[in-house]
Amino acid sequence: MEEKKQQKLLPDINFPADLRKLPIEQLPRLCQELRQTLIQELSVHPGHFASSLGVVELTVALHYVFNTPEDRLVWDVGHQAYVHKMLTGRRKQFHTNRQLGGLKPFPSPKESEYDTCTCGHASNAIGIALGMAVAAHEEKKDRNVVAIIGDGSMSGGLAYESLNNASNCQNDLLIILNDNNMSIDRSVGGMKNYLHQLHTGSTYNSIRQNIARRMLKWGWLNEEKRKRIIRFNNSLKAVLNKQHNVFEGMSIRYFGPDDGHNVIQLVHTLHQIKEMKGPKLLHLHTTKGKGFLPAETDPTTFHAPGKFSPETGEQLKPQTSEPQPLRYQDVFGQTLLELARQNSKIIGVTPAMPTGCSMNIMQEAMPDRVFDVGIAEGHAVTFSAGMAIDGLMPFCNIYSSFAQRAYDNIIHDVAISHLNLCLCFDRAGLVGEDGPTHHGFFDLAALRPIPGLTIASPLNEEELRDMMYTAQLPQKGPFVIRYPRGRGVMPPHPTPMKEMAVGKAQKLRDGKDVAVLSLGPLGNTAAEAISELESQGLAMHIAHWNMRWLCPIDEKALEDVADKCKTIITLEDGTIEGGLGTAVLEWMNDHKKPVHVTRLGLPKTFVEHGAIEQLRHLCGIDKQGIKATIQKEYTELSTQSR
Amino acid sequence: MEEKKQQKLLPDINFPADLRKLPIEQLPRLCQELRQTLIQELSVHPGHFASSLGVVELTVALHYVFNTPEDRLVWDVGHQAYVHKMLTGRRKQFHTNRQLGGLKPFPSPKESEYDTCTCGHASNAIGIALGMAVAAHEEKKDRNVVAIIGDGSMSGGLAYESLNNASNCQNDLLIILNDNNMSIDRSVGGMKNYLHQLHTGSTYNSIRQNIARRMLKWGWLNEEKRKRIIRFNNSLKAVLNKQHNVFEGMSIRYFGPDDGHNVIQLVHTLHQIKEMKGPKLLHLHTTKGKGFLPAETDPTTFHAPGKFSPETGEQLKPQTSEPQPLRYQDVFGQTLLELARQNSKIIGVTPAMPTGCSMNIMQEAMPDRVFDVGIAEGHAVTFSAGMAIDGLMPFCNIYSSFAQRAYDNIIHDVAISHLNLCLCFDRAGLVGEDGPTHHGFFDLAALRPIPGLTIASPLNEEELRDMMYTAQLPQKGPFVIRYPRGRGVMPPHPTPMKEMAVGKAQKLRDGKDVAVLSLGPLGNTAAEAISELESQGLAMHIAHWNMRWLCPIDEKALEDVADKCKTIITLEDGTIEGGLGTAVLEWMNDHKKPVHVTRLGLPKTFVEHGAIEQLRHLCGIDKQGIKATIQKEYTELSTQSR
Repeated sequence: MEEKKQQKLLPDINFPADLRKLPIEQLPRLCQELRQTLIQELSVHPGHFASSLGVVELTVALHYVFNTPEDRLVWDVGHQAYVHKMLTGRRKQFHTNRQLGGLKPFPSPKESEYDTCTCGHASNAIGIALGMAVAAHEEKKDRNVVAIIGDGSMSGGLAYESLNNASNCQNDLLIILNDNNMSIDRSVGGMKNYLHQLHTGSTYNSIRQNIARRMLKWGWLNEEKRKRIIRFNNSLKAVLNKQHNVFEGMSIRYFGPDDGHNVIQLVHTLHQIKEMKGPKLLHLHTTKGKGFLPAETDPTTFHAPGKFSPETGEQLKPQTSEPQPLRYQDVFGQTLLELARQNSKIIGVTPAMPTGCSMNIMQEAMPDRVFDVGIAEGHAVTFSAGMAIDGLMPFCNIYSSFAQRAYDNIIHDVAISHLNLCLCFDRAGLVGEDGPTHHGFFDLAALRPIPGLTIASPLNEEELRDMMYTAQLPQKGPFVIRYPRGRGVMPPHPTPMKEMAVGKAQKLRDGKDVAVLSLGPLGNTAAEAISELESQGLAMHIAHWNMRWLCPIDEKALEDVADKCKTIITLEDGTIEGGLGTAVLEWMNDHKKPVHVTRLGLPKTFVEHGAIEQLRHLCGIDKQGIKATIQKEYTELSTQSR
Repeated sequence: MEEKKQQKLLPDINFPADLRKLPIEQLPRLCQELRQTLIQELSVHPGHFASSLGVVELTVALHYVFNTPEDRLVWDVGHQAYVHKMLTGRRKQFHTNRQLGGLKPFPSPKESEYDTCTCGHASNAIGIALGMAVAAHEEKKDRNVVAIIGDGSMSGGLAYESLNNASNCQNDLLIILNDNNMSIDRSVGGMKNYLHQLHTGSTYNSIRQNIARRMLKWGWLNEEKRKRIIRFNNSLKAVLNKQHNVFEGMSIRYFGPDDGHNVIQLVHTLHQIKEMKGPKLLHLHTTKGKGFLPAETDPTTFHAPGKFSPETGEQLKPQTSEPQPLRYQDVFGQTLLELARQNSKIIGVTPAMPTGCSMNIMQEAMPDRVFDVGIAEGHAVTFSAGMAIDGLMPFCNIYSSFAQRAYDNIIHDVAISHLNLCLCFDRAGLVGEDGPTHHGFFDLAALRPIPGLTIASPLNEEELRDMMYTAQLPQKGPFVIRYPRGRGVMPPHPTPMKEMAVGKAQKLRDGKDVAVLSLGPLGNTAAEAISELESQGLAMHIAHWNMRWLCPIDEKALEDVADKCKTIITLEDGTIEGGLGTAVLEWMNDHKKPVHVTRLGLPKTFVEHGAIEQLRHLCGIDKQGIKATIQKEYTELSTQSR
């Protein structure tokens, strides 16, 4: 490709208002510049990559046609919104993206008036946008609302509930289905073009609108009838009646599929359908990673690739000489396969995260025993429950913050029946650069009150393996094992698996005065902190327990601690309201032990994004923070006893 | 209708095995007897009524054709499963239905091997059944699995996620869509019959199966391709390609719609499709309340009508001479309308419960400002969030236990953005006869750790009104108001509304030694208990605070209590782990106040069904239990100080 030496357009485009001054024929050039900038920026400042490459033209067309920010764009998930950021005043700060104090990982109203809502979790865009569209209707504002959602997010029940409701209330919502699924059958051909021509033709539309208006006016079709008619249940019938597709069946008008990379055609189409009344959907085909061959070829790797060469796509990994500990994800993945080889009842279930949680290891070896159910966390749990009822042993792995979507399924479908299955909550605690929507803060506090759940968090890789082994032994009831993102602390060799005593904590060191009670891998940090304090002569005064189990909690350990120590420091990477610290405190109170409990954990605030270590520091749960707390508690005790 | 004097069939039918001995032509007579028994029983022992009348024939046909309990029936919700209970060994105990210690309100594996899973919350049946069908497949068991789901439940995202996955894994699941929606267009006529004949014809099916098998064998269609092809995303294309309907588009074979009241035809159809491979759906039309005219005419009233005359359908309400306090539901409904008249921004949102939560009052007066989104709790919240972003003030009312389905939506779509909207949790705490699936135990504990939520519970009708009034004032952030099922304590006249100070508790009586801190209407019971204890000379020793707000909690009140009292009793109708009691305890600990906290609330166990007062007694939170606790604490204090 030969590049002409011509003035760049992008330097003068800071806001959509600048973009709208360009003649339409310059848009392809602008897209090209944006794509190059994206590749350059992301190659050195890692982030989500391939998704944004796929929507360069769409983003430009949307801001060109719609009067943002007065018109509303609602991005589903938001990892594809980097071009949107660049076009809305944030191009110059883009190098700070995802860094502590820098641009946020996903769109956020706290950052820009062009970001209309909290983004991060999939499938919410249609519901949010529908609310906005209804608000515009109620307030009689002439405002367009556009939801942009990927085909992956369409597997989420929330998207479906929202579509269902979109057909049931007055609104002019435009949904853009950004379809980059490579499995899609492209053979629709002539019919597609026919439908597209038919539907966007303005004569056809004005006739359709007029007829409806007159029928209403003449009383042949009242509002109540209309509402009933267009409910989803009727879509079944509508389809039988040879309506064109499922969206039309839900009385959402359908346009497309169109080429999502033809920016000029996109602008024309958006202009045509933008003034149409009623809910409508534009179906676009896009290529994830478009314009960067390595990403087009391997979009999964280039979803969030880390640093890479902008010429070749080669990934630049930090060189290390020593073998690193495995990530907890990989320990989970390898152990699951190992267990599945021994226990034919074991089944893997993941809601669209086989690679992220490393269940792909088992998936490759035993494709028939792993179920990727799509972005559908609630179903992942309920489906697992069904299998458990009939004797299988599912391991269902969900990221902690996404598991919030399965809260009722855990209570209603699993806990009430006390089923034998194992929920593994990956990405528990602080997750780092993905920020507040993705931190796994609430799992411990939300799950603790549910009767009959065993809730565990391993200190290290060996314990993760042993907990998984224990969970799949007969009649263990519902197990939850939660562990963080990132590497463990042991040499990367699998340890032999053994049964653990459920509800039994591990005393890591004897002590008196101050006891540290930790849950999960943060216990390693606590151990380091205590070791360093040894030099100050505090060693004999500090006890340390690795609690292992939040439920059932080890009452004997608590009794021992209460008898020997005057103050307790609890440590967990979950919210300090309702988790381990609270459980310990409740026990001390209920057993009338006059022991003070200092709870270290995640604060009651939405912690922003940054490197995990930076965030731990801010929350006071890194080594330095733990040391400081121990010292403070010890000093207070010494002062009191003087 | 003339009834012949012939031997009754039902007395000899205790289990499905008995049923299967009947010749097919006797089934209509059995259905008639079952229907009469149901009407008689339900007229004196209230329960869910119209739904079960609608599935008499279906239930008989299912147990006649399928080899239950080895074959699995999965009832969605389960309120329609009364005939199922009668046919599976529980007819003689049926009069104990829903009573403390009697038959459970919904199917439960704890009660019968014919009940395959926990039922109660809508839309889970397909997912559970799919899990069972996959288990049968993995275990190579020749077992049929049938999910029976109503059209109402099909609006839930969980049902959709399950359908989506059903098309993506090997299973022979049969889904029965029990469609009693009266809004349904019946004009499908000839095409329907044609499709039905075509699809259930065995020649057609064997050809279809053979072709697929050969294509696989010859390598034209591998498993991976097949899986990809049948994913839901392709259903869009499938429909464009003129497949017959949305289920077929998801590669779930569709049969029907059939008449769900023709038991003989049903038996034939089920026989024909039961051996077919792959997921399939049979669509039945039924009439809710079938066979009892008053119920057919007014199925909403007869969903759960209380006692009624089995001849006329007249509802038998207990006569009272005095005007009763209003139900909290009605206070909510009336107040919402009153507020909506003053504040044009107010919008009502309900997931399929307009009558249950009394939002129908506003719905009738302002149909354009109330949105019933169907059984879709997650969407109800996310949709409300969208409206709140653009300046409306939604009141979204959800039953507490169903709100568990919106946990992530509350965190992700509401709390992170700190939106101004009001979530009203109806049926909080013990709900009585609907039992463990419906008690609202977990809301307080699960919501408390979420940053920025205001969480309130009113002492009485006046406070409910004032809290609602306060919630809709400008910039109040996200509000949660939770209140129980049932009547309040005040005369049934609306009180003038006024702003309440958020986070400020109310001192109901001064005292020392023992302080009772209550949240919600249980405070009235505590007040009665304290009054009765006055006669024993304890009055001056007992303080009582109506806490009103769980978040933000009134720290000044806690300080005052800590300074004056030696022991605290907290009282709430939520789980004792993580709610008010825990919040008070955490505060006392964090502020180094050596005050013991006795937490009264709901135990960490799934409490069964019974009258609310009976259950409160069991949980120790009725007047008697509260008195006993106060006395015990007081006695202990006196003993210590002696």
